[in-house]
Amino acid sequence: MQLTQALHRAVARQPQQVATICGGRRHTFAQFHDRVARLAGALQSLGVRAADRVAILSANSDRYVETHMAVPWAGAVINPVNTRWSAAEIAYSLDDCDTRVLLIDDPFLPLLAELRQRCRALTTLVHMGDTAPDASSGLLSYEALIADAAPVADAGRGGSDLAGVFYTGGTTGFPKGVMLSHDALCFNALALVAEGMARAGDRGLHAAPMFHIADVSLLNALWVVGGTHVTLPAFTPLAMLQALERERIQTTVMVPTMVQAMVDHPQAAEHDLSALRSLAYGGSPISEAVLGRALKLMPQVDFMQVYGMTELAPTVSVLPAALHTGTDTGKLRSGGLPALGVQVRIVGPDGRELPRGQVGEIVVRSPAVMLGYWNKPDETARALKGGWMHTGDGGRLDDDGFVYVVDRVKDMIITGGENVYSVEVEQAVARHPAVAACAVIGVPDADWGERVHAVVVLKPGERAAADGIREHCKTLIGGYKCPRSVDFVAALPMSGAGKVLKTRLREPYWAGRERKVA
Amino acid sequence: MQLTQALHRAVARQPQQVATICGGRRHTFAQFHDRVARLAGALQSLGVRAADRVAILSANSDRYVETHMAVPWAGAVINPVNTRWSAAEIAYSLDDCDTRVLLIDDPFLPLLAELRQRCRALTTLVHMGDTAPDASSGLLSYEALIADAAPVADAGRGGSDLAGVFYTGGTTGFPKGVMLSHDALCFNALALVAEGMARAGDRGLHAAPMFHIADVSLLNALWVVGGTHVTLPAFTPLAMLQALERERIQTTVMVPTMVQAMVDHPQAAEHDLSALRSLAYGGSPISEAVLGRALKLMPQVDFMQVYGMTELAPTVSVLPAALHTGTDTGKLRSGGLPALGVQVRIVGPDGRELPRGQVGEIVVRSPAVMLGYWNKPDETARALKGGWMHTGDGGRLDDDGFVYVVDRVKDMIITGGENVYSVEVEQAVARHPAVAACAVIGVPDADWGERVHAVVVLKPGERAAADGIREHCKTLIGGYKCPRSVDFVAALPMSGAGKVLKTRLREPYWAGRERKVA
Repeated sequence: MQLTQALHRAVARQPQQVATICGGRRHTFAQFHDRVARLAGALQSLGVRAADRVAILSANSDRYVETHMAVPWAGAVINPVNTRWSAAEIAYSLDDCDTRVLLIDDPFLPLLAELRQRCRALTTLVHMGDTAPDASSGLLSYEALIADAAPVADAGRGGSDLAGVFYTGGTTGFPKGVMLSHDALCFNALALVAEGMARAGDRGLHAAPMFHIADVSLLNALWVVGGTHVTLPAFTPLAMLQALERERIQTTVMVPTMVQAMVDHPQAAEHDLSALRSLAYGGSPISEAVLGRALKLMPQVDFMQVYGMTELAPTVSVLPAALHTGTDTGKLRSGGLPALGVQVRIVGPDGRELPRGQVGEIVVRSPAVMLGYWNKPDETARALKGGWMHTGDGGRLDDDGFVYVVDRVKDMIITGGENVYSVEVEQAVARHPAVAACAVIGVPDADWGERVHAVVVLKPGERAAADGIREHCKTLIGGYKCPRSVDFVAALPMSGAGKVLKTRLREPYWAGRERKVA
Repeated sequence: MQLTQALHRAVARQPQQVATICGGRRHTFAQFHDRVARLAGALQSLGVRAADRVAILSANSDRYVETHMAVPWAGAVINPVNTRWSAAEIAYSLDDCDTRVLLIDDPFLPLLAELRQRCRALTTLVHMGDTAPDASSGLLSYEALIADAAPVADAGRGGSDLAGVFYTGGTTGFPKGVMLSHDALCFNALALVAEGMARAGDRGLHAAPMFHIADVSLLNALWVVGGTHVTLPAFTPLAMLQALERERIQTTVMVPTMVQAMVDHPQAAEHDLSALRSLAYGGSPISEAVLGRALKLMPQVDFMQVYGMTELAPTVSVLPAALHTGTDTGKLRSGGLPALGVQVRIVGPDGRELPRGQVGEIVVRSPAVMLGYWNKPDETARALKGGWMHTGDGGRLDDDGFVYVVDRVKDMIITGGENVYSVEVEQAVARHPAVAACAVIGVPDADWGERVHAVVVLKPGERAAADGIREHCKTLIGGYKCPRSVDFVAALPMSGAGKVLKTRLREPYWAGRERKVA
C-alpha cells in the first residue's frame, strides 16, 4: 500500500472537488495535486533523497496537509514535530533521526535560533507562513518553492517502506522515534473507515494537532474516502463550533476535554451542528455526564472511542457508536473491542496470557504495528517481543472481550501482595477539597514491599495533613489502596506533553535500588 | 487478521441483532454464534483437523453463511463448490485438494452417486436440507449435528494461514484451486467497505451464488460492519424485487444481466426499493441504457463496478458511484481505478511496463493476492512472476489511470502485425441479424501470421454466408479486424461457467503448431 495512492485516486475521480479549506483559502484536488507534485520537486531539488527525513513544525493548516502528501510523493519520510515541546526536546528529536530539512510556521520562529544552534544536521529551513521571509533570515519560502519548482512524478515508495518517524514523548527519558511504514498507516486508515470514521467525500475537521497520530488517523481516513480537509489552526471551543457550522463538517477527532469545553460553551446551542455525523475521541474514556450533554446538543452524532498508541499507528480498540447510547452496559468505561484486524491479550510478568478479568500488561498484534524505534534496537526488541507490541499499559479484558485500561504497568503498585492502580488512588485524592493536583507512586517499604505514597499540590491558601488525606481516601476506596505517606510540594514535574513525570518523583526513594514492575 | 474476528465482535457488540434471514427463518448473532461453535465442534468430532478442506455444494441459505464461519472456526479450510458444474468437474475439484467432508443441499443430491463413485477421499457427507436424511442414505443431518455437538472455542487460525480453496473454471484444461489466506479475504473486505460496499449494521442480500468470490466479498464485507445476511436461494427478477422490498435491503452484489432482468421486469416499479443504497456489480461493465433505466427505478442507489478475479480475492479495480451519474466521461466502459491498496500495471510480452494507452497484459500487486494454486507450483510461479499477479486479461490504462479490459490475452489476435481483440470483433459479428451466437479466434495464415476467423451459430431458419458477415462487419469496425474466414456450426462448446471454450475451437487449426500469444 502507498500513502500517495489516495491522491492519484482523488485527482482521477474528482479533480474539481475541494481538497483543502484553510480559513478563506480553498484548493481543488487538481490544484492540490499540482502543488504537491511541485513541493515534492522542490524538496528533491533541495537534496532530499529517498528515505530522508523531512520535519514539520507547524500549527494545523492546508500546507500541513500538503506536506503530509508531498513528503512521501518525493520518496522521503515525514517527521511531524510536537508543537508543545521545548526547543531542547525538538532539537533532540530532529537530531536523533538526522533531519536536515525543517518546514516551520510563524508561531515557532522564536525557537529558530536555539534549533539552529543545537541541530548540526539541519541545513534547510522552509518558512510556511503567508508572508515572504526576510532575505537575511536564511529561510526559504514555501510558496516560492512551489511556484518555482517543476512537478515531479510520485517516487513510488510504499509497502513496508518507512513513511514517518513519530516522536513519542513518554514520561521516561528521551523521546523515542516510532517508525511507521506506508502499510501501517494505510491499514489503520482502512480499518478506521470500516469502523465508520469517514464516508465517501466527507468534510473532516482537523481540530486536534496534526503532528499527533490521532489526527494523522483522520488525515489518512479522509484520504481513503476522497474527503475534504478543513484545518483549524488552534482549538478554542468557539472556533470549533464556528468551523463545524460554517463548513458543514461531517467528521472530526477530539479528546474528551475538547468535547467537554465545546459542549459546555455558552453559545454551543446557537450553532447548527447538524452536518456532523462522526466524532471520534481518544486519550481516555468519556464521562457519562459529558456524553449525555454532547448527545443532547448533537443527537445525530455517532461517538466512537479509539484507544491506541503511536506504536500501533495507533488503533488498538474501538468503542462503537451503538455503545454510547441506550441503557448503561458499563462498556462506556472501557476502550471498546479490538479493532478490525487487531488482536489483544493480557499477559503477566512472565509473558503468559492471563485469564479473562485479571489485570496485566496489554499486548497487541496488528498489521499496523511499528517497524521499531529509530536507532534503538534493544528497546525495539523489548517492545516487540514474541511478535506482540508490549504497550506498557496495564489493563484487563471483560467476558465479552472489551479492553479496560487501568494504569501504566510501571505505575502500578504492589503493596502487601495486592495490586494498586495509581490512577484509582489519584482520583480519590483529587476529590479532597484542598487538593489542586496529585500523583501517586510506589516507594520502598520494609513491611509492605512497596507503600502507596501520594505527592500533593494544595490549592492556594488551603491546608491539609497526611492523615486527613488518608481518612478522606478511606471513604472512597479500600484501605490498602490509601496513601500511607504523603509529600506536599509546590508543583509536580511535568513532561512536554503535559504528563506527570512519575519517574522523577520515584527517583529519590529508589536511588540505588531496583524496582520490580509487573 | 482472522475471518472469525467478525463473529467475536458481533456477538459482543450486538448479540440480539439479526444475523441471518432465510425465508421465514431468523437467527440473532447470539444464536448464530452458538450454532457456529457447535457446527465447528461437530466438524472436529468428524475428524476434521487444522487446515483440512471442507466442501459445500449448496444453494444460498443461512446455513451457507454458518458454514462459511464454522469452517474457519474449526480451524479448517472451506472449498465452496461451483453449483453449475457437472458431477465430473465437481469430483475433480474435490479430489484435487483431498476433500473428505462435503456438505450438500437438496438440489444436488442427484449428483451424489457419481460423486461417491469418483471421489475416493470423500468419507463424510452432511445433508443441509430441512428434512432429515434417510438412514440408509449414509448422510448425516446438518441440524442433528448442531443439536448434538458441544460448542468449541475458535481454533484461532488467521494471517497467512489458508482460509479457502476456490476452484476457478477457466476455459483451459482442468479447474485450478485458488488458495486464499485469512489476510487476503479480510483485506479485500476492508477495502470494499472503505469503497462504500457496506455500512454499520447494513442488511445485505446474497442473490449471486455464494460459492462465487464476488458474493464471498459481500459476505465478508457484511461481517466487517456487523450486518445482517439475507439469502435468496435462486435468483429470479421477481424474487429479487420482493426480497429487496420485504427485507429493506441496503446493499447487494449482482452481475449486469441480473440488473437488467430485474430493472426490465414488468412489475419492477410496483416494488418499494427505497432502502437499497449500494449495488455492486462485476463480470463486465454495465451498458448506459441499462444503467439509465436502473437509476430511473432506484435514483438513490450508489452503483459500483468491481473488476476482479478469484486470484485477487477478488478486487482489482473499482468504478465508484460518482462516475455512474452525471455527464458521460467515457469511464463507464472502464473497470474503474485500482482499488485501495492495489497496484495495476500493463506489461508487454517481455514483462516490461508499457506506456499509458497501449494494450498489454494486466498485472496486479495487492495485499489480497492468492497464496498460489493448489498443488500447482509451476502455474503458481508463472502467475505470480516477479511478485505481480499476471491476470491473463489484456487491457490498457487511460491517462487518468482507469483500467480497460479488452480481451483475454490468449484470445487476442495478431494479424499482419496488428492487434485485434476478439471481443470487439464478436460484438460486430453479433449485430448481424442472422447471428445467434459467435466466437472469434486467431488461426494460422501463411500471409498474415494469424487470420481473424469467426465461428458462427445462426438463428433458427436464418441464412448467411461468410462474405455477408464480413461486409456487415466492415460497416462497424476496421477492415483488418473483420473475419477473413467463417465457420457455421450448430453450437459453441461451453465451459461449466458458461464461457465459450475457444481453446477447443482453436485446436483443429493449431494441431502440431505452437501459437505465440502476447
